[in-house]
Amino acid sequence: MSVHPPDAALSISGLYTDRYQLTMAQAYWVAGRSHEPAVFDYFFRSPPFGNSYALFAGAASLLDALDAFHFADPELEFLRSEGFPNDFLDCLRALRFRGSIWLPPEGEPVFPNEPVARVEGGLLETQLIETLLLNILNFQSLIATKAARCRLAARGRTITEFGLRRAQGMAGRWASRAAMIGGCSSTSNLDAAHRYGLASAGTMSHAFIQSWETELAAFRHYARVYGSATILLLDTYDTLQSGLPNAIRVGLELAAQKESLAGVRLDSGDLTDLAPRVRQALDQAGLRRVKIVASNQLDEFAIHDLVERQVPIDIFGVGTALATGSPDAALDGVFKLSSCAGRPCLKRSETTGKSTLPGRKSVARFSDAQGQFRADAIHLADEPAPDFILPLFHDGPTINLSSWTPVPLLHLVLQQGQRVAPMPAVPEAAIHALGQEARLPVDHRRVLRPQPYPVGISQALHTLKDQLLHSSFPPLP
Amino acid sequence: MSVHPPDAALSISGLYTDRYQLTMAQAYWVAGRSHEPAVFDYFFRSPPFGNSYALFAGAASLLDALDAFHFADPELEFLRSEGFPNDFLDCLRALRFRGSIWLPPEGEPVFPNEPVARVEGGLLETQLIETLLLNILNFQSLIATKAARCRLAARGRTITEFGLRRAQGMAGRWASRAAMIGGCSSTSNLDAAHRYGLASAGTMSHAFIQSWETELAAFRHYARVYGSATILLLDTYDTLQSGLPNAIRVGLELAAQKESLAGVRLDSGDLTDLAPRVRQALDQAGLRRVKIVASNQLDEFAIHDLVERQVPIDIFGVGTALATGSPDAALDGVFKLSSCAGRPCLKRSETTGKSTLPGRKSVARFSDAQGQFRADAIHLADEPAPDFILPLFHDGPTINLSSWTPVPLLHLVLQQGQRVAPMPAVPEAAIHALGQEARLPVDHRRVLRPQPYPVGISQALHTLKDQLLHSSFPPLP
Repeated sequence: MSVHPPDAALSISGLYTDRYQLTMAQAYWVAGRSHEPAVFDYFFRSPPFGNSYALFAGAASLLDALDAFHFADPELEFLRSEGFPNDFLDCLRALRFRGSIWLPPEGEPVFPNEPVARVEGGLLETQLIETLLLNILNFQSLIATKAARCRLAARGRTITEFGLRRAQGMAGRWASRAAMIGGCSSTSNLDAAHRYGLASAGTMSHAFIQSWETELAAFRHYARVYGSATILLLDTYDTLQSGLPNAIRVGLELAAQKESLAGVRLDSGDLTDLAPRVRQALDQAGLRRVKIVASNQLDEFAIHDLVERQVPIDIFGVGTALATGSPDAALDGVFKLSSCAGRPCLKRSETTGKSTLPGRKSVARFSDAQGQFRADAIHLADEPAPDFILPLFHDGPTINLSSWTPVPLLHLVLQQGQRVAPMPAVPEAAIHALGQEARLPVDHRRVLRPQPYPVGISQALHTLKDQLLHSSFPPLP
Repeated sequence: MSVHPPDAALSISGLYTDRYQLTMAQAYWVAGRSHEPAVFDYFFRSPPFGNSYALFAGAASLLDALDAFHFADPELEFLRSEGFPNDFLDCLRALRFRGSIWLPPEGEPVFPNEPVARVEGGLLETQLIETLLLNILNFQSLIATKAARCRLAARGRTITEFGLRRAQGMAGRWASRAAMIGGCSSTSNLDAAHRYGLASAGTMSHAFIQSWETELAAFRHYARVYGSATILLLDTYDTLQSGLPNAIRVGLELAAQKESLAGVRLDSGDLTDLAPRVRQALDQAGLRRVKIVASNQLDEFAIHDLVERQVPIDIFGVGTALATGSPDAALDGVFKLSSCAGRPCLKRSETTGKSTLPGRKSVARFSDAQGQFRADAIHLADEPAPDFILPLFHDGPTINLSSWTPVPLLHLVLQQGQRVAPMPAVPEAAIHALGQEARLPVDHRRVLRPQPYPVGISQALHTLKDQLLHSSFPPLP
């Protein structure tokens, strides 16, 4: 459970949306259609970073935001000045989200094209939360996935996140949260640490060292204040000729006082060359337990390479690439209407794979006898998990599921506006991620060229989609 | 002047920082050095997106954040639980930022390696705001630059920003603000529109159309509610066979009622093929004034290409790439100590171009008789703008400035914690950007392969840097 004040109360309001949501809402309201039952699916089309999956994150933040979702008087006044009429504003003033939401647990691997959230409720309220939902789930899932890839590349070494200075403004808060779900051990971000109960970590900057008369004076003073928590930054003047010998000197001084230097940090230069020399010098000085922290524009590929080469780095500090999810910078999640007033519907597309799946749907995840995930089946919510699946887009072989065991991917977390399931804290979500990823066959979880995971649709869903695509409504050429 | 509640009051606190800022702060405080005079420079090393400059943005948000900067009791309690001692927390409780800051106006083009902000004050307070300053200025300047590139590519056509759903969480607010400084005409983001007094815009989504029995019914209802403000989305079922004929029908119906369809929107398919066909059909129906809005994963390169090919698009809706500044996703700005206790200092680097510039510095921007910018000179603050500049990093020719006129780039906006200059509103900053960019020779402002702009250092600064690099302190190999 969230132990801190919800984010939403702080800065997310009814206006945290696109203008078109309100113009559409008003059009529904004018037509008297606000309460028509609607079903929306949230899904993404391509996993970020060439991964085979996205790690789902953001559920707790979304529910916090929905708890606080309303239009305050100054916001209604703004909308009035923008031309929205008074009686519609009265409707907005009274509006709270009273719909229902099904989600996977945070930390769950999820795959392209399968529903990752199902949202049901009145047409107006479900349409209105589109932007909010996409904004939160797209971003946190992006960053959790990036962090998972860094963790995977690090093969057991520690990852710490320190991207706040390069994070996209206030995105930093959720970036750190999601990075911890994805598997970072700590963050530099104190605001996020405070809000979400995360472990925080930090060393020193070049400025700290420059501010003293000598590097040695800076190191000694820091060690005097922080004792065995001291991590010394080596590259302010010259890593091997100045930083390293000074750190060893201070490390030995700490040892003489029954304390121990925690680590040294490399923040520039060729890590493949520097880290082994630093390790060797520390070891020769008897400082075998001093850890090496490295932090020079790292991402999962740089970490993968360093680990492959067995470069002696204990802790990777990852900043920009992790906090911004570069180079992708966004998960392409969308929110599509799949049923309205009890009538299944879809959006057509001339591009293969961009027509949407109609109807109220569930996802069943199938595991084999060893507990390994083998396939996900998208099926209609009113049919049981199927025995076989058809490919999503093309003709192709069916997959027989009958020897595997299904569990539902999506769980009801909000029922008519009321929370019906606790939201695990971030450390629990991180543990969930580790456990579920371990159940994903290794071909699907590697940093370089992972294989796509099988996701298909039931026969009944296939038939429904076909009917709607080829029906005379909407008019065809 | 900001007319809305400052951002900072809503969600930025003393904890909006990296943990190491507080460990360093405590170390300064223990040493009695908190109030030693310090000077920090903010600068970036490479402009984003291959541009020759960054468009500076974020000043008003930074000052709002500094106005609100303090440690509240729950935050101090958190820091206590993290091991910081009570007497240091008392120091933090009393802390407000009382330093001085020099900045360019928002919307100013700024170049690599020149100081873009100078921050002076006590060592503890100036160190402590590093993360906050970098977080705000890096992100808003990134997005303003991206928007400027889109505007440049559009050559007078309109750009509207609609990235909130793919924005990095709460980054969306500042993304929209910065996008407007960079030259967007409107944003979909109502929260940002409300806070910063921005123009907002919005049409309709596929879901709106799907929710009606027919596309025509959806179009007609929308037109009934919005009249001459109606923009119809064409690609829910089939752009040319369904969306376009239905839109023409509704356009003619509006015309019959002395109203006029404002536009149609294309959101998928090959815009180069579709837009001319749509234009032709609209024109043939007598709907010549109906605008075409296009919005399919656009960025400055796609816009450049469409404009080069004279594809008849009037308004470009730019989402993900603009709101996230992809693919760069971050501006690489840093905050480096250049003087402490009256002593100029630098960080050395074995990498050419990564040693920092020492001392308290100013930047003079030189214009020729036509008002065109010709070169920027970084010089010591206590010397006048120089007559010539030396290259920043390598040996090379000097540039003679004597026939050009200098003006200072950086202006005092905060003096010992007090604002001393008004912050222009977003529309004024956008106008400033247009005016200043027009003064940049055209070689430096094009979307593809712009030329680098000359930035150099004065002889006195060169000499000081040389002395510090080659002085016996700090110890050399």
